[in-house]
Amino acid sequence: MISLAHSTVNDKVRANVNSALDDNRLGQGRFIKEFEDAVAKFVGVKHAIAVSNGSMADMVALSALKAQRPEKTEVIVPALTFIAQTNSILINGLKPVFVDVGYDYQMSIADLQGKVNENTLAIFPAHLMGRKADMVSIKELARKFDTFVIEDACEGFGIFEGSDFGTFSFFPSHTITTGEGGMVITNNDLHAEFARKVSNHGRKSDDILEKFHFDCFGFNGKMSNVLAAIGCAVVEDAGDVIRVRQSNVTLYNSLLERNWFAESPHGYPMLCKTTEERDAILIRLWENGVEARKFFSCLPTKEYKYGGSYPNAEDIGARGLFLPAHQGLTEEDVQKIVSLLS
Amino acid sequence: MISLAHSTVNDKVRANVNSALDDNRLGQGRFIKEFEDAVAKFVGVKHAIAVSNGSMADMVALSALKAQRPEKTEVIVPALTFIAQTNSILINGLKPVFVDVGYDYQMSIADLQGKVNENTLAIFPAHLMGRKADMVSIKELARKFDTFVIEDACEGFGIFEGSDFGTFSFFPSHTITTGEGGMVITNNDLHAEFARKVSNHGRKSDDILEKFHFDCFGFNGKMSNVLAAIGCAVVEDAGDVIRVRQSNVTLYNSLLERNWFAESPHGYPMLCKTTEERDAILIRLWENGVEARKFFSCLPTKEYKYGGSYPNAEDIGARGLFLPAHQGLTEEDVQKIVSLLS
Repeated sequence: MISLAHSTVNDKVRANVNSALDDNRLGQGRFIKEFEDAVAKFVGVKHAIAVSNGSMADMVALSALKAQRPEKTEVIVPALTFIAQTNSILINGLKPVFVDVGYDYQMSIADLQGKVNENTLAIFPAHLMGRKADMVSIKELARKFDTFVIEDACEGFGIFEGSDFGTFSFFPSHTITTGEGGMVITNNDLHAEFARKVSNHGRKSDDILEKFHFDCFGFNGKMSNVLAAIGCAVVEDAGDVIRVRQSNVTLYNSLLERNWFAESPHGYPMLCKTTEERDAILIRLWENGVEARKFFSCLPTKEYKYGGSYPNAEDIGARGLFLPAHQGLTEEDVQKIVSLLS
Repeated sequence: MISLAHSTVNDKVRANVNSALDDNRLGQGRFIKEFEDAVAKFVGVKHAIAVSNGSMADMVALSALKAQRPEKTEVIVPALTFIAQTNSILINGLKPVFVDVGYDYQMSIADLQGKVNENTLAIFPAHLMGRKADMVSIKELARKFDTFVIEDACEGFGIFEGSDFGTFSFFPSHTITTGEGGMVITNNDLHAEFARKVSNHGRKSDDILEKFHFDCFGFNGKMSNVLAAIGCAVVEDAGDVIRVRQSNVTLYNSLLERNWFAESPHGYPMLCKTTEERDAILIRLWENGVEARKFFSCLPTKEYKYGGSYPNAEDIGARGLFLPAHQGLTEEDVQKIVSLLS
């Protein structure tokens, strides 16, 4: 089976996990800070806060911003993304405002311009498929309307363009994995303080007389030391993993005579002629031992049934799929996958 | 240091964790179902769903009930409990209705009677300190008003009186620990189906053509296979752990000439004469190498600042503390702790 996910349990993973067990530290422990520091260093950012998964990273980032501007009610997201991103808005009691995407799978700036306003808490683009959103235009609009910006890089580990927050996921199908896991990153000290607080029940401090007092809303978003121990090992190879994924994308491009590009590839996206052709290809791949996926559907119309007009997201959702591009593929794997497409 | 938490990394924990690594299954994997089955068997319940922590267990249970009765808006909780329980209500967009407690630390049935009504989605008692709430009275009221019941047993692993849902936490200070971890239990097939769905993004199914479609609201509440591997090992000793905790409670009782009882003890609760005395004892214990904690404060008045009248919760919150009672204590530890109380 050629899977969409690839995890690497190497000797360093084994050694770290057993070291966490030797420490008898299953919950919080030294590997949490070590993993946070390693991710911060890889990205080149001041603060990294380890959390239980990528959806939780989105939830924590939004909650930390909401705590600072409780009067703002709307968050702008692409119509085409993983539903966890938009559910993180709903679970924070905020209203998702959807924006269409371009055929680069990224938030359409033209559509965004009409939707950002004084109620906007944050513009929340996703670096979908590990391809960078147009952050220059997004940040310009954010400055104009004084809104926050969160970059969802759950599908593009390592990408961060200096917004208020970035979020990563360490789910098995993503660049590096801890099984379940995620990280919130920021250069802003106050944002970091709120992020740690909301993901630790809103706890005031760990002081002996304060520990059961809470000065803001919160929940439990914490990662465990054992999973952070895995993270410390796998983040060491992140640069190599991204390079192998990029070369797989290059190989797909040459075999398919295309020119797709992603800074930190999640998979290789394809647009079929019709929905029927897409579904037939998915089933053919599956029957030949290749796991591939439908692209996300247009969330506001197909999943939430809110209605609205998002022609590109509808079109990509109806006939898009993505193929494995991970670091565990051989050249023969990619050739086999391509041979099954037609 | 005599800590409030005790985790046991024994050979079985080591073997299981390394076996999960050997399987190369960090995310979902065989240990999840094995852990779920072991907890279900220990409790004697049909369904157990592993989640990322105890707060998440509360959040999942409530979300699964809300999905079934979206028109109901209120959830009734004790005024004295860990804030994660009440935050799980707020994060589901529901209104917490607080009920005072008795000096047994459990929901007051007299106060509950005036607060349950046709808007109540669920009555949500906690088996605080591992002492069983008055479930006979609570279930009678729930039947009368046709509301759901969730038992928060995060502090009392193993307790379940057959309500709609029970929730457990595997945080280090609790009976058994996976570092971070939790479990939702139920005998109801539909509840179980909703609980699995909401904690997996509301995903319709894992069918290849359905996998990116979602038919209810959800988020990521999933446990990872590596932590479930720890769970499979530690749940084997849960019965013994509870018995040792009970005998520690008995020892405290005999040394202090008291008669406290808990089915599945979390710690040993104390009421000091004043707040000042309580805080002085906490600091004295700490200075002598003993970790103890303030009791939770009265949530609606002291933490949320909603106001209201909860005299017993105020009183216990102001002068209550709890002492370690875990399975790692020696008889000498308990004697030392008691000697430091006066």
